[in-house]
Amino acid sequence: MSHFATRLSDAIHRSGTPLCMGIDPHPSMMPALFGDAREPGSAATIRAIEDFTLACLDAAKGRVAAIKPQAAFFEAQGHDGMRVLATLGRAAIDAGMLVIMDAKRNDIGSTNAAYADAWIGHDAPFPSDALTVNAFLGMDTLEPLLARADATGAGLFVLTRTSNPGAGAIQDLDVDGKPLFHRLAEQLAPLAAARCDSNGGSALGIVAGATWPEDAKALRAILPSSPFLVPGFGAQGAGPADALAGLQRTDAGWDGGLINSTRGLIFPKAAASATSTASWRQAIDDAVEDSRTALASV
Amino acid sequence: MSHFATRLSDAIHRSGTPLCMGIDPHPSMMPALFGDAREPGSAATIRAIEDFTLACLDAAKGRVAAIKPQAAFFEAQGHDGMRVLATLGRAAIDAGMLVIMDAKRNDIGSTNAAYADAWIGHDAPFPSDALTVNAFLGMDTLEPLLARADATGAGLFVLTRTSNPGAGAIQDLDVDGKPLFHRLAEQLAPLAAARCDSNGGSALGIVAGATWPEDAKALRAILPSSPFLVPGFGAQGAGPADALAGLQRTDAGWDGGLINSTRGLIFPKAAASATSTASWRQAIDDAVEDSRTALASV
Repeated sequence: MSHFATRLSDAIHRSGTPLCMGIDPHPSMMPALFGDAREPGSAATIRAIEDFTLACLDAAKGRVAAIKPQAAFFEAQGHDGMRVLATLGRAAIDAGMLVIMDAKRNDIGSTNAAYADAWIGHDAPFPSDALTVNAFLGMDTLEPLLARADATGAGLFVLTRTSNPGAGAIQDLDVDGKPLFHRLAEQLAPLAAARCDSNGGSALGIVAGATWPEDAKALRAILPSSPFLVPGFGAQGAGPADALAGLQRTDAGWDGGLINSTRGLIFPKAAASATSTASWRQAIDDAVEDSRTALASV
Repeated sequence: MSHFATRLSDAIHRSGTPLCMGIDPHPSMMPALFGDAREPGSAATIRAIEDFTLACLDAAKGRVAAIKPQAAFFEAQGHDGMRVLATLGRAAIDAGMLVIMDAKRNDIGSTNAAYADAWIGHDAPFPSDALTVNAFLGMDTLEPLLARADATGAGLFVLTRTSNPGAGAIQDLDVDGKPLFHRLAEQLAPLAAARCDSNGGSALGIVAGATWPEDAKALRAILPSSPFLVPGFGAQGAGPADALAGLQRTDAGWDGGLINSTRGLIFPKAAASATSTASWRQAIDDAVEDSRTALASV
């Protein structure tokens, strides 16, 4: 398996965009044409979620650089929901798509080794090319996750500056003249620098919300080689220029990270009332094209 | 459903100990008598993990105040492992045991609502009396978790001071003269004070590692009403007095939290070589009794 940063860069260049499709199967937002998803964990809901998420994957192929399933929405359907997540991840990898599992896992070292078993690499039960993780418990807790990522050619995205309005409550606390998230990035920097591919891209990335573009620029200065996973573009309010603030313009286009959009891509207004699979797909294709164009125009 | 703090206090008094049994099915540490658990996700492994964890639950009944399954070890077995976790949680609740789901979930608000669906309350697919959560993303992200906990009589334990050696990398950063974990506790204090039962116990607790007893005392001063979930007792190196540093001695015994032990209770040396269920159970009973006695003697 080649290096995560190499595969990420290839995926961006092949699809022609750093756009990432978030796949969050909110039952209440899924169009009725996928079936009745009102009863949590019921056979009908599980089938609807499987059909919906696989249809999203189909629309993603070749048009976005990666997909990012959000574990919470699958867990909310119980173990059968987790089966669908495994199926989705496997189908995406088999189709050559990059899969970012957004599970934000964290624990002490020996337990993180079990999370690594569960989530990191193409052969994990919930297969991925990269996993989002939380480093609040300390850098020592990242070791088993990094070890597995290194062994499987996978990546990690460490939560550093999240996109939510209240992100600053902890992340902005002043630590000796700098906000906490700078201090976290400084601790990640040597770990990121130690795992670069031949083009200087690291397998250790961060999550840096599109809603804080100035922070993304500051983080890029601290972490020049790290891929940035950027949530918050679109429905959460950030425009394309803000979303791209931490990425790098190259001759071949944007590089250095993924701009995620979820609701803007899989729940566009025009898709909600679709009465056929074809009209639903057209609405998704249009939404993906709009976001691709918006990012390309920056 | 009565208030979480009331049920916690009742469970401690009924069992006569604040001891909590961590249930982490490490396949490589499970005695051979539970079957061959070497192949991840195989039918034999799933059966072994189900038999082992239910046998642990059986040993826990009446002898510890709560059980704390660790999600990572179930996730590592894929969706069938998650089915076993749901089965274990349901069986424990049906038996009147308190269940702390140790999943350390965290995300932005709208996604945390899905984690609340998955993990909080007796009717969740992964049923619990309380869930461990990570607040690094900000206090706003706790809102949907607290709302679900309040609605279902459940509790939350927010990671504040973890038991691992490297916990200080982020948690000890100096924020205006105090370590970060103090500042986090200060932000939790009004939320904890707002959800107390008639005895002054809160549904909003924290995780405070047994390996840092002085920090636990400082945290108790900031959070007088919060239950403390205390990992790190036993195999991680902390003795009983250290583990109890943040709890409260009352006329009826210890109160105000749970002292978790995992490896010390479910993987004692004498159990590893057990060749019959009866001798395994005797080893577990002895380990539980030793820990009960150690805590009672402080």
